[in-house]
This record gives sequence, structure tokens and C-alpha cells, in this order.
Amino acid sequence: MKTNLILINNDIVDAEEINVHPFNRGHQFGDGVYEIIPVYNGKAIHAEIHMENLFNAMVQIKIPGFYMEDEMVDFTRRLIEAAEVTDGLLYTQVTRGIGSYDLDFPEQCEPELIMQAVPLDREKLAEQRKAGVNLMTVPDERAVKCELNTLNRLPEILAKNRARVGKCYDALFVRDEKITESTEAAFMIVKDEMLWTYPTKLGSIHANAVRQLIKDKLAATLDMQVIEKAYTKEFALGAEEAFLCGPRCEIMPVVKIDRRMIGDGKPGKMTLGLQKALEQYISEQTK
Amino acid sequence: MKTNLILINNDIVDAEEINVHPFNRGHQFGDGVYEIIPVYNGKAIHAEIHMENLFNAMVQIKIPGFYMEDEMVDFTRRLIEAAEVTDGLLYTQVTRGIGSYDLDFPEQCEPELIMQAVPLDREKLAEQRKAGVNLMTVPDERAVKCELNTLNRLPEILAKNRARVGKCYDALFVRDEKITESTEAAFMIVKDEMLWTYPTKLGSIHANAVRQLIKDKLAATLDMQVIEKAYTKEFALGAEEAFLCGPRCEIMPVVKIDRRMIGDGKPGKMTLGLQKALEQYISEQTK
Repeated sequence: MKTNLILINNDIVDAEEINVHPFNRGHQFGDGVYEIIPVYNGKAIHAEIHMENLFNAMVQIKIPGFYMEDEMVDFTRRLIEAAEVTDGLLYTQVTRGIGSYDLDFPEQCEPELIMQAVPLDREKLAEQRKAGVNLMTVPDERAVKCELNTLNRLPEILAKNRARVGKCYDALFVRDEKITESTEAAFMIVKDEMLWTYPTKLGSIHANAVRQLIKDKLAATLDMQVIEKAYTKEFALGAEEAFLCGPRCEIMPVVKIDRRMIGDGKPGKMTLGLQKALEQYISEQTK
Repeated sequence: MKTNLILINNDIVDAEEINVHPFNRGHQFGDGVYEIIPVYNGKAIHAEIHMENLFNAMVQIKIPGFYMEDEMVDFTRRLIEAAEVTDGLLYTQVTRGIGSYDLDFPEQCEPELIMQAVPLDREKLAEQRKAGVNLMTVPDERAVKCELNTLNRLPEILAKNRARVGKCYDALFVRDEKITESTEAAFMIVKDEMLWTYPTKLGSIHANAVRQLIKDKLAATLDMQVIEKAYTKEFALGAEEAFLCGPRCEIMPVVKIDRRMIGDGKPGKMTLGLQKALEQYISEQTK
């Protein structure tokens, strides 16, 4: 993978050669949105869904739809080819472009789109899935509309850092006493043979293509029902199984939360079943 | 003023000539902090206080103290001279520097400091002070630790834009039914011959050198006491006077909130008295 190549506003260039203008509003204010797309076997998964998310997030923060969804999907194909991406992630961000220093944005703006290939150690993730991972809960100090993929990521950065310092895989956000999601993935538990997860309609969780796939397809293959309902940490601790899910970690068994064991402290049967179903789905999509 | 010149990591260069690396964490995650310092008559006001704020914000988000406070104060002097800044603002931001794409930050990082001169139309502000300005209240959707000057500014951007669309000077944040501050300034009211303002100890408001100056010095010159207490919009609407205060707007009379008049709908006597005291203070500091 050529990680030095990036796509910027339709051109593919060496990252060292391009200038992000210091007055770019992304750089000055975090004034932009992003999306992460997984690549397997040289093919982007759910590129259309991800680019629709990106487009929606742009609309929500009033960045003009400078690039259409299908155009952005085409960008993924071009970058995968040029940067020789076999496996990894595509990171795309759109900022409101360059402006004079002013909090309010100009009526006219020229958004800047940057796409880069990001390596991902899937073998290490597979190892982690075998043992399961530990999480720690942290207060959800993100902005109210944290369900949008904006470039305002400091609360997530600091939570992720706290997790690493505490020797945990990730931090689990708790808002109004309910578990929402982790810094990079959705969270689900298995309880009474059902899958429980925080509802999207309440906001506070990101659009997540793997969460959606579980809900729409994979859960049914294991005869499981998905219940979208907010629940507390105590409720989660009483679960039979727990896992994170997302385009980066796939379906990652969680065996401890705040040092307390979930189930028997090993990756659960249903969780592993879902991971297997996901692997099969991915392999069909990337033949 | 030469707005094209910026100071970056100790060097003063043309903004067009420098590269912000696309993988700078400020650009990708809003992973950084900022500070705004007013300049009058070629002199920065309260530069030490502002740079102490900046340094503290760096510490809070765990950016190493790469630049010391006095070094940063020296940067202001150098940029003022090189960019021939007579009147305006100095905008400084420090990001965590360049990193591979990863939410958690590296143990080692090389922060990037950028300082630029920003023009400010003080004549227009003086005109606005004569008539007073209108505000609109908006829900405070910022992150929990919004008292830090971080580069996560989207909720402020969107609130400021809402205010402009609604033909208001600025938006006033309301959190837990209490008025906190505007997108760029502190908020105070005059009631029963006292100044009421949201307490810093509750968080949710930025460090503000002008607010602090009023509290420590200027209020006393008008025989006024400052009461730091959270209050509702209804309480504020019953005030005799109201104003915004900050390094950018100085002391700006507020005559309407959500189209409802404050006092007699004209800039208040105490407000104008405070502005006069501030002007005198500034003129003494910048002789």
C-alpha cells in the first residue's frame, strides 16, 4: 500500500507535495466531516452507504454538496488502484475549505476533500478476537450531536488515550447513565438470547455500517432479534455476551468492562457466530 | 497589516509557502487548542494571561509544553513587528502535530504552533456599541469541557451561523436552562445595581481576559459588585442592562434577546461606563 499517495479534490498526489492551507477551516476549527471505509481484497465494502453518510453529514453542517455520492464512490476506486490498497481502510474527510479567520462561515465556500489509505493490522485484530478485549467506561463528554462524523474528535481522542493508559482496548461512553458506544465502534450485548443495543433514534451514536448489517441481515442468520433500547452498565454486566462492532474492528468480543467479567470471561458463542457470518458476507462481497 | 505572514514553529513565513501536512492532527481531528489576543497601537494586551491560558489548555489535552509561555509571548512581539500589526487580533493555535491516522495519540509528538494576524473592524464595532446588538438564545450543544479553547468549534460555528441567519449579532448558549456565554464572548447583566455572570467554577464558559478585568478592576471603578451565579433567560430579560464582553467585542451593549427588549432597549449607563473604563485601561496599557 502506498500510504504517501492521497486524493485531494479529484487529484491523486504525494502527501508531501500538497499544501493544506493553514487557513483551511478544518485545520482552524475542525470544520468538516469524515468517513472510514474498509477495504478487503482490493475492494471497498459498503462504499455507497459510507458515502451517503458522508454526504448527509455535510448537509447537516451546511457544507455544500460539492461532491456527489457516486463521484465519491468513484474516488475510492481510483485511490485503491493508484495506492495499491489490498487490505486496510480508506479515510475521507471534507472540510469547508479556506476562509478568512471568522467563526461564521462564508456564504460561498469551496470544500476540500482528502482521501487517504490507512493500514490496518487485521491479523492482530483476529488475535484480539480470539481472547476478547477489555473496556473501561468513561463519561460521554462529547458534543450533543456526536452522532455526526465531524472533525471535532477531542473527547474521543482523550477517552481512547485513557483506555490505552488503563490497558484497555477501548473506552465505552456512558451518557445519562446509559452505554452509548465506544470511541470507534457500536456496542451490543447478548441477553436472554436477544441482541441489545443503543437506539439510533436517540442520537449519541454514529451511523455504523456493521451495526446496521447485523440488524438487517446477520442477526437473523443466528435466529436472534435485535432490540434497540438504552441500558445501563449494570444491565450490560449481567449479559451473557458483549461485543463491539464496526468497520474497523469487525465484531470484537468484549470479556471485561471496568475489570468485571462478562459471562464466563471468554468470547461468547453468539458473538463468534456473528463474526463468522460477517466474514462470510465480506468474502462474498469481495470475490 | 501583512495578513499573508504567519509564524509557524518559530519562523515567520508567507502563508502560501508553508505546508500544513494533511496528516496534521489538527486538520484530521481538531486535535489542538487556540487563543486570541487583541492588539492596539502595535501592542498586544494581556499577552501573558492569554499565553498562560493557551499553555493550560495544552496541558489539559496532554499536548506537551513544547513552547513556554514567555517564548509564546515573544512570538507575539515578533509577529506584530514583522506583519506590521497596528490594530487587530493575533490568532495562535497549537496542534498535536503530524501522526499516522490513529485516534489515540502517539507517546511522542512534535506540536505545531501557528500564529497569524487577523484584521478586526473596530470602527464597525464602535458603531454597533452605539446602537447595541440583538442576540438569540440557542441550546448549548457543545462538548462537556467547552471551557477549553480547543479546535473543536463546530457547535459554535453552527450557532454563530444561526445568529447571522436570524439577523442577530451573536448566539447566546443556554445549558441546563442557564445562560452560559455567547459563541465568542462572556455575558453579563446589570440587575439591582449589581453585575451578574455565569460562574467559571461550573465550567461551560471560556477563560476571558475582559470578563476577568471587569471582575478584578473595572466594576469597582463604578462601585459595582460582581455576582457569579447561573441564571435563566427569564431572569436576564428582567435585567436593567445586558452586555457581552471579550477581547474581540470589548464591552458590547445587548438591547434585545430573542426579540424581547432589555431595559429601555438602549445601551445602558453602566455598560457604557464599563466600556469607557475599558478604553481608558487599554489606552494606558498601550501608550
